[in-house]
Amino acid sequence: MENGLLIVISGPSGVGKGTVCKQLLHDNDKINLSVSATTREPRAGEIDKISYFFIDKEEFESMIVNGEFLEYAYVHGNYYGTPKKYVLDKIEKGNDVLLEIDIQGALKVKEMYPDGVFIFILPPSMEELKKRIINRGTETEDAIEKRFMAAYKEIQYVFKYDYAVLNDEIELAVKRIESIIDAERYKVNRQIDIIKEI
Amino acid sequence: MENGLLIVISGPSGVGKGTVCKQLLHDNDKINLSVSATTREPRAGEIDKISYFFIDKEEFESMIVNGEFLEYAYVHGNYYGTPKKYVLDKIEKGNDVLLEIDIQGALKVKEMYPDGVFIFILPPSMEELKKRIINRGTETEDAIEKRFMAAYKEIQYVFKYDYAVLNDEIELAVKRIESIIDAERYKVNRQIDIIKEI
Repeated sequence: MENGLLIVISGPSGVGKGTVCKQLLHDNDKINLSVSATTREPRAGEIDKISYFFIDKEEFESMIVNGEFLEYAYVHGNYYGTPKKYVLDKIEKGNDVLLEIDIQGALKVKEMYPDGVFIFILPPSMEELKKRIINRGTETEDAIEKRFMAAYKEIQYVFKYDYAVLNDEIELAVKRIESIIDAERYKVNRQIDIIKEI
Repeated sequence: MENGLLIVISGPSGVGKGTVCKQLLHDNDKINLSVSATTREPRAGEIDKISYFFIDKEEFESMIVNGEFLEYAYVHGNYYGTPKKYVLDKIEKGNDVLLEIDIQGALKVKEMYPDGVFIFILPPSMEELKKRIINRGTETEDAIEKRFMAAYKEIQYVFKYDYAVLNDEIELAVKRIESIIDAERYKVNRQIDIIKEI
């Protein structure tokens, strides 16, 4: 049997990658969302091994030392990371795994697993991205400007990705990603077993 | 504006690539079938520059010398070839060009234009391929066996292609090719102008 795909989706702040990923998962039963490990405390309603793998700092750090993460980061006093074994087990069973992740994380994953499908979500324009950041409505003008400048810088990283998908409309963006996933399955180097059978 | 795609479709004798290409062209106005040049005489109903570019041997051979073909072959006393300028002009205007071509031809095109999208059509099984060759019904047992052995050898070349598409059902095969074409458009290196605009 052929391996599943590791689908890595990222993009700048405000581009709507969360919504796109949610819709993609909703429409495609075969795609599994990756589960991260974290050292932060579970919040109300979060379930261990489904929301996150909740582990303690000591265990997390020993996993770092043993190279057991595809990527990890230390944010506001807590570790977050993608456990390599969890993802690879799924893939080797033929399941697709979706990783929604920031750009730094995605580039680390690419180093560890270059065979993944790296998709960058683009805004229709920088003006539209600014609007979307403003429409979140929860931030000061200064914070908005900072987020926008960060997003602007982040877009330069698109050239490290395999694909760039415009998020002008969520349904269209999802359809584009579905085409990419289909096409990736038809790549000759992902079908070696099938071809041999023929 | 971004370039169109050169879509190269081939596969073994009897796999049904002709029918798949016909349906693909029928369903997609944006895809243009490439027009070959030939030195053979026009047949009834064939139109110059639409069916073929009908040219004489001298002109064909001078085009060979000047490297003006993506590929060419000499078959039963006539030349056939794909004019480079015709194809590249279309692509540079943003049109997609479809080339339905045998495996030898496709590999030559790949040398000249590696940026093409190389798709190999696979039969569901070798038994099914044999059935399809037999069902053409016009050949002796010996000729069938020869065609089948040739097809068997041809399938080994799939690994030189980018994609392999199963032709179990024509409609499905066409849909798979459409996904590949869409996905190729979303490749980062095909969207450099669009990304710069954003």
